[in-house]
Amino acid sequence: MKELLYEGKAKRIYKTEDPDIVLVEYKDSATAFNGQKKAEITGKGRLNNEITSLIFLKLKEKGIDSHFIKRISETEQLVKKVTIIPLEVVVRNTAAGTLSKRLGIEEGRQLSSPIVEFYLKDDRLGDPLVTESHILEIKAATAEEINILREKALQINTVLSSFFDELGINLVDFKLEFGKDREGQILLADEISPDTCRLWDKQTNEKLDKDVFRRDLGSLTEAYETIFKRLGGHQHV
Amino acid sequence: MKELLYEGKAKRIYKTEDPDIVLVEYKDSATAFNGQKKAEITGKGRLNNEITSLIFLKLKEKGIDSHFIKRISETEQLVKKVTIIPLEVVVRNTAAGTLSKRLGIEEGRQLSSPIVEFYLKDDRLGDPLVTESHILEIKAATAEEINILREKALQINTVLSSFFDELGINLVDFKLEFGKDREGQILLADEISPDTCRLWDKQTNEKLDKDVFRRDLGSLTEAYETIFKRLGGHQHV
Ligand SMILES: Nc1ncnc2c1ncn2[C@@H]1O[C@H](COP(=O)(O)OP(=O)(O)O)[C@@H](O)[C@H]1O
Ligand SMILES: Nc1ncnc2c1ncn2[C@@H]1O[C@H](COP(=O)(O)OP(=O)(O)O)[C@@H](O)[C@H]1O
Ligand SMILES: [Mg+2]
Ligand SMILES: [Mg+2]
Repeated sequence: MKELLYEGKAKRIYKTEDPDIVLVEYKDSATAFNGQKKAEITGKGRLNNEITSLIFLKLKEKGIDSHFIKRISETEQLVKKVTIIPLEVVVRNTAAGTLSKRLGIEEGRQLSSPIVEFYLKDDRLGDPLVTESHILEIKAATAEEINILREKALQINTVLSSFFDELGINLVDFKLEFGKDREGQILLADEISPDTCRLWDKQTNEKLDKDVFRRDLGSLTEAYETIFKRLGGHQHV
Repeated sequence: MKELLYEGKAKRIYKTEDPDIVLVEYKDSATAFNGQKKAEITGKGRLNNEITSLIFLKLKEKGIDSHFIKRISETEQLVKKVTIIPLEVVVRNTAAGTLSKRLGIEEGRQLSSPIVEFYLKDDRLGDPLVTESHILEIKAATAEEINILREKALQINTVLSSFFDELGINLVDFKLEFGKDREGQILLADEISPDTCRLWDKQTNEKLDKDVFRRDLGSLTEAYETIFKRLGGHQHV
């Protein structure tokens, strides 16, 4: 029996024999708007587990470490256990979603340069946007850590933007989570998948990400399958 | 006949013979929640005109320039015309209002150090919180200007906090607007009044500001009169 450490909206985290390693199981649940919209979508867990594994491997190839160790089944992977820094680090290349609403910029407008935003990872507070001063006040991270997060996020953006670009996909924006390992090293964690990225087909502008679910734009699994295939899916990792 | 240049929620701006000077008339209107809550409160215009004049004079004494030239009637003052930078610069010393909601900090908690926030001055967008990257993206201000605004805001906070402290009042937070004069110099503008500050009696914690109106806590004019008197009101400026 796997011992459950935490059940989130999209994943379950289990203990393993090694105290520095946890097992992540990707669920078929889709949620949006801070959990207000919900559905079970068969195949989603498998697709996100596969996609996030391929992306973490790609980052590794480019010298960017993450918590990822290996995929061990259709819906499971082993990762290094970290203490999550309670910030969602968002990188944006093109205006969309809350950025468009906040600034009154039409969706699809290319930004002059990538924007890094920090949101407090706190469902009760509705994951609010926070500034550096806010982060320091609540001690979610130190000034030095904020700089590291921003730098790593931009570095990851450079790698992933050109990677997706080669696959005919515009990486519009994405959300990262980081954590600290036992030695206090800051490591990329959580997932990078169509649940946490906006991915638009460069030719058709078709949305190939969770907005398909948020905005009822068609079949989520078809969209995620498209991403998986372009990433070279089926060669199991 | 005065020629109206702009009518806002709390003030009217009129042309004068001098193209570099405008006349500000303080209205009796009280509004809150981006104009959703409204009332006419006799005496409010006079009180805010008096209070803001006293505060701008106090700042001047301490070497901080503003647009303020002189009070010319109960509800009117002359100010230097500026092009307003479309940012509301908020300084906070104690948690309250939207900061408390955003970060889940109880109202009244002293902050470790003053926090400066920028909100986009845009009623259609609901005056959203913006980060430095957002400001740069929409070109509301340059990086250099943002630094000047932050520095000036903190300097004003130092003067006003100790000034109010001597009057038995805790300056919880306040909102500033800045503009550029004909020479491109950045100047403190708009108003500093109980409409734009949170002012709590140090002894009783009584709110002596617009929260009295926002939260239906009693007579707004009584609260504003208290502030006016403590500032040494009745000696007309
Ligand atoms: N390497 C890791 N070690 C420990 N916790 C992690 C790691 N990677 C991600 N997590 C956390 O595990 C949870 C993943 O489940 P998820 O369904 O995404 O949760 P949530 O609904 O909180 O976002 C998240 O809280 C995430 O921060
Ligand atoms: N010195 C100045 N020159 C030009 N405009 C100013 C000056 N000081 C303030 N303003 C602007 O005049 C208006 C004041 O009216 P107000 O009722 O506060 O308007 P609002 O509802 O837009 O906040 C504001 O838009 C403010 O930015
Ligand atoms: Mg999550
Ligand atoms: Mg105003």
